[in-house]
Amino acid sequence: MAGSSFGTIFKLTTFGESHGVAIGGVLDGVPANFQLDLEAVQLELDRRKPGQSAIVTQRKESDTVQFLSGILEGKTTGAPIGFIIQNDDQHSKDYDEMKDAFRPSHADFTYQIKYGIRDHRGGGRSSARETACRVVAGAIAKQMLESLGVEFSTYVDQVGHIRLIDTSFFLKEAIESNLVRCPDERTAEKMEQLIREVRADGDTIGGCVRCMINNVPAGIGEPVFEKLHAELGKAMLSINAVKGVEFGSGFASIETRGSAHNDLFNEDGSTITNHSGGIQGGISNGMPIEFRVAFKPVATIMKPQETINTEGEKTELKGKGRHDACVVPRAVPIVEAMAAIVILDFYLRNKSVTL
Amino acid sequence: MAGSSFGTIFKLTTFGESHGVAIGGVLDGVPANFQLDLEAVQLELDRRKPGQSAIVTQRKESDTVQFLSGILEGKTTGAPIGFIIQNDDQHSKDYDEMKDAFRPSHADFTYQIKYGIRDHRGGGRSSARETACRVVAGAIAKQMLESLGVEFSTYVDQVGHIRLIDTSFFLKEAIESNLVRCPDERTAEKMEQLIREVRADGDTIGGCVRCMINNVPAGIGEPVFEKLHAELGKAMLSINAVKGVEFGSGFASIETRGSAHNDLFNEDGSTITNHSGGIQGGISNGMPIEFRVAFKPVATIMKPQETINTEGEKTELKGKGRHDACVVPRAVPIVEAMAAIVILDFYLRNKSVTL
Amino acid sequence: MAGSSFGTIFKLTTFGESHGVAIGGVLDGVPANFQLDLEAVQLELDRRKPGQSAIVTQRKESDTVQFLSGILEGKTTGAPIGFIIQNDDQHSKDYDEMKDAFRPSHADFTYQIKYGIRDHRGGGRSSARETACRVVAGAIAKQMLESLGVEFSTYVDQVGHIRLIDTSFFLKEAIESNLVRCPDERTAEKMEQLIREVRADGDTIGGCVRCMINNVPAGIGEPVFEKLHAELGKAMLSINAVKGVEFGSGFASIETRGSAHNDLFNEDGSTITNHSGGIQGGISNGMPIEFRVAFKPVATIMKPQETINTEGEKTELKGKGRHDACVVPRAVPIVEAMAAIVILDFYLRNKSVTL
Amino acid sequence: MAGSSFGTIFKLTTFGESHGVAIGGVLDGVPANFQLDLEAVQLELDRRKPGQSAIVTQRKESDTVQFLSGILEGKTTGAPIGFIIQNDDQHSKDYDEMKDAFRPSHADFTYQIKYGIRDHRGGGRSSARETACRVVAGAIAKQMLESLGVEFSTYVDQVGHIRLIDTSFFLKEAIESNLVRCPDERTAEKMEQLIREVRADGDTIGGCVRCMINNVPAGIGEPVFEKLHAELGKAMLSINAVKGVEFGSGFASIETRGSAHNDLFNEDGSTITNHSGGIQGGISNGMPIEFRVAFKPVATIMKPQETINTEGEKTELKGKGRHDACVVPRAVPIVEAMAAIVILDFYLRNKSVTL
Repeated sequence: MAGSSFGTIFKLTTFGESHGVAIGGVLDGVPANFQLDLEAVQLELDRRKPGQSAIVTQRKESDTVQFLSGILEGKTTGAPIGFIIQNDDQHSKDYDEMKDAFRPSHADFTYQIKYGIRDHRGGGRSSARETACRVVAGAIAKQMLESLGVEFSTYVDQVGHIRLIDTSFFLKEAIESNLVRCPDERTAEKMEQLIREVRADGDTIGGCVRCMINNVPAGIGEPVFEKLHAELGKAMLSINAVKGVEFGSGFASIETRGSAHNDLFNEDGSTITNHSGGIQGGISNGMPIEFRVAFKPVATIMKPQETINTEGEKTELKGKGRHDACVVPRAVPIVEAMAAIVILDFYLRNKSVTL
Repeated sequence: MAGSSFGTIFKLTTFGESHGVAIGGVLDGVPANFQLDLEAVQLELDRRKPGQSAIVTQRKESDTVQFLSGILEGKTTGAPIGFIIQNDDQHSKDYDEMKDAFRPSHADFTYQIKYGIRDHRGGGRSSARETACRVVAGAIAKQMLESLGVEFSTYVDQVGHIRLIDTSFFLKEAIESNLVRCPDERTAEKMEQLIREVRADGDTIGGCVRCMINNVPAGIGEPVFEKLHAELGKAMLSINAVKGVEFGSGFASIETRGSAHNDLFNEDGSTITNHSGGIQGGISNGMPIEFRVAFKPVATIMKPQETINTEGEKTELKGKGRHDACVVPRAVPIVEAMAAIVILDFYLRNKSVTL
Repeated sequence: MAGSSFGTIFKLTTFGESHGVAIGGVLDGVPANFQLDLEAVQLELDRRKPGQSAIVTQRKESDTVQFLSGILEGKTTGAPIGFIIQNDDQHSKDYDEMKDAFRPSHADFTYQIKYGIRDHRGGGRSSARETACRVVAGAIAKQMLESLGVEFSTYVDQVGHIRLIDTSFFLKEAIESNLVRCPDERTAEKMEQLIREVRADGDTIGGCVRCMINNVPAGIGEPVFEKLHAELGKAMLSINAVKGVEFGSGFASIETRGSAHNDLFNEDGSTITNHSGGIQGGISNGMPIEFRVAFKPVATIMKPQETINTEGEKTELKGKGRHDACVVPRAVPIVEAMAAIVILDFYLRNKSVTL
Repeated sequence: MAGSSFGTIFKLTTFGESHGVAIGGVLDGVPANFQLDLEAVQLELDRRKPGQSAIVTQRKESDTVQFLSGILEGKTTGAPIGFIIQNDDQHSKDYDEMKDAFRPSHADFTYQIKYGIRDHRGGGRSSARETACRVVAGAIAKQMLESLGVEFSTYVDQVGHIRLIDTSFFLKEAIESNLVRCPDERTAEKMEQLIREVRADGDTIGGCVRCMINNVPAGIGEPVFEKLHAELGKAMLSINAVKGVEFGSGFASIETRGSAHNDLFNEDGSTITNHSGGIQGGISNGMPIEFRVAFKPVATIMKPQETINTEGEKTELKGKGRHDACVVPRAVPIVEAMAAIVILDFYLRNKSVTL
């Protein structure tokens, strides 16, 4: 209830602060007797890792996951998978200044108010470093889903005002072919150029991640309060810096008419259009699941900003840590991980729909 | 786990199909010893009711809530509040045609696939009639929150391409002054005009509801997976026809820079701007909570549409029931109800943050 | 979280006070497409009903269950089953005296302390009348389990000092052949005689219910914290007046040695003895599940007792309502209902043990 | 849902097998800003540790807990406390024989059936080693409860047929004064003598732990399904080898009459007797909470036993690991830990009983 767990059957619980001993998690409800590719889990983690390229933060964290339980000779046993990721390369001193001052648009102030105590080093529990644990769990979920034929295509479709219009299902090769993780080469170049400019200014910029999931079986999702897209939406909004989420036609649907928006059926039960984004009444209909996730610009900027300290006095802060000028390239594996956790969880939930 | 419950401490469970005997719910975890205004609950329900005006559906449901338990001489006892709303004025015959045919962009197809059985009358469990129960629970939550000083301003800010630009906190009188529930008279007139046109065409149109909540105490919300806006987002996406949700600057934040987007502090801990929408790191910061909810056009249109039947054969359907040409005027109390449930639940959850 | 729900997938939520309008419940997570025998549900409810015989309370409640949702032409639809049981024959005046006085060994005092308000009429929410809703849900669970071959044998095995030694699996006919629900005729007679004596004294007496469940598939139950017997134990201890529960060899196992207590295997995986009561490590092993549930004597006696009032002053109370001299005959269907809910829930939970 | 979590607000999730890399846990919902005595946590863990004395198993595990998160300068931050206990001194070879054979009255068979795969080394996840994590969480809970005045007295009150009749609240000094953890010296000696005899026989024997908790505030516990004793009962039954639990007068209440069993009030709201064991209607009444927990004899004996292998063929097994002849002395801190977790959790839950 205190917020560190996600999922119902396939359930992830995470712990750890960005500058503590380690972060980690427990994954319970893992289907038994499944052969895992543990190397592939680490590769997924590497995609999220800081310091991968010139356009992301230069923090170098090895981010090596160590599995402690639940796996026997590479196979899941049905027991909970406990894992940790050691924290190294901690420049905690970069954060000394923040002990008494609240960074604007960070969680410093709200954590202090809520708990009356705050681990100021690097954002503590509110740091995006926590999402590494989600990527571990998501990679396991993805392997299981892939064995069922489910396929993910997650990519950056907007940085600042530069937006990719093509909404195809792009292959991983195209997505990973550039630093921005935008599958269209020319758009990616423009995005990269913009990020470099923003970074040179000591500033940051927002972006958007698009996710498309093929071959999710029809019938997944629960009615009323636990609609598939409601839970996917919660999953996305729980990622740091996310300000909005939309499914299928999304916000654009506001301006459409029912006669144009309705997805008419083909004889095989598929639909001609997919404005619904693969979900009707909260339940998957077999069409691709499609959604977009909006990320605000990172709050930590390399420019001095006026703020207040814990005494309520005006003071000035300038970002000193190593931060991203735009999070969306590194957010791609996180969005995909959370989507995989949700889909697998609902797939398992659906097993008890009949006796 | 099957989707009929919402909330953690303050928890609503609903039941009922649109053309069954009754719909109803159980509200558990209700704080004890609180004097309820039961008439005000009914008034809230009346705001959601069909048949209120020329621009909404002409179904006439009395929608009278009957409380069965948990209240003694108007006061909550801490025991669960059970309630029912009888279904009357059921034109089930309007739905005979739908027994064997799937309405496009409805949940007919997905329910059939999921359960292998389907109550076809009026959408059964997937009908928006279910939201009446949410309004009952939300009205109770709102009374409790109002006793704490919390204030809601929920209104239609867009119908089709007509959008209200002013994002003030509008009073209920302004919102309720017209049929559309848009607090600006001139914009409301244009919206009403558009809905009448669309309706005359036998068509439907999308819209958007904006919600602003003042005086939510700072410190409400849980970190990581149960961020306040993540749960609010789930609550909104669980409402029928919702395709997207955004908080504070929302999707527009994609195009902004951190230096402009960050909310700088005043000395009293409030912020000069409120791009964050009142939430930082998933926890309320004392500023107004602000979000928008996008509704697609209603799927049932009064024009013939091609579709398939349960045998997978092509057939044609034309909406016969009495339906809304635009749901957002009636969605206003539903959005407000779900928001109230979430805020009260997190308020109660926060009571155990220290010993 | 406020205590009115039970189960994880197959989940019952109840509401209602003994002297309110109605009691009722919502059963969510009901497997879809199962043909129910609704008459059999009512018959089960009749077994719990007061006023059945000379040895139980003479309150006459019709206890007729009305189903409101989730069932279409006798078949479950997967939607939540809402139901109510009207309260009639309410002798609320019998309880006037209790408005200001706390009945000894009742929940009057603790409810008053906890909530600061209390529905004094007939025990309000703490009344055993609430268990009627459990019997409804349990009857549905039992029908589903019986379709899988699971069989229940639940009976009174002790009243006061009179104990049935034979621990066979008795058929329902034998159990229902007498008023006490003890399957051995001679023992039943002695028990009945004892209850009559106690009743004549205006007193009450304790008793014990034994439950045996055959053909539960091996593999049901979860490790560590949600062991099958832990959840069964919780279910039993949640029934009014229960003071203890034991599985298999139970408390007698304290005095045994491992060499005698261990259940040795037959070649087919069954065991020669069943001291384990059908559960190893929290998981069913395919042997009969066996447990006993101890009920204290009913607290309401027809003799004057000294007590205190809400002012903390000494006063005297004498039971005026119509009460049981011994609850165990009527507890038999309640124990069986709760057991069925747990077994079915764990059966459904086990469906997601592998991909 | 897969069984590795316990608690609602104060929630423990554990992981790890007895012969894996490490066991550990995550404790979420920890009240913030509480000064912990981490050394005291380790001391509590030492009480559970094997190899403490001549009468318990000679396995030597250092059982050192390492905290990874959630604590800043000794104070809880409100963030989840992650911790691990490395596994060393693993004699995994002792278990080679068990790879293909099922130990009688162990979980080997049921895990194999349930998951289709099994970590045979030392019982894997079903090993009682998992309870070390409960002791860590319980020690933290106990410190918080003690700061509120709550006091525990947990001791062995029966080994085999030797039973302590005195049911006083004994001080920790008396309980820890001997190896058996029975506070009466002469009874303890007899128990120790019996355990030595049984051990010399290569056999094991059952026992019983009694727990008494003073100063639990009245009003703790939830009605109907989550009664305080129902959850305590579940907690106890989730401990390895437990076969029964009873509260207050327990099974003995079966033979009593209401007139003798009812706890009459003193003018201050306390009661003259405490047959209720401090709980009425599932809610604490301010009197001491009292219960007993029955442990069967340990299944692993140092004598050859006939059993079957995974092929269903007869074979013989003899315990080779280092095991306890009687678990109850080491079970004392486990019972106390689980009780503390339940009481603290319900204490926190009760904070939202009113607005």
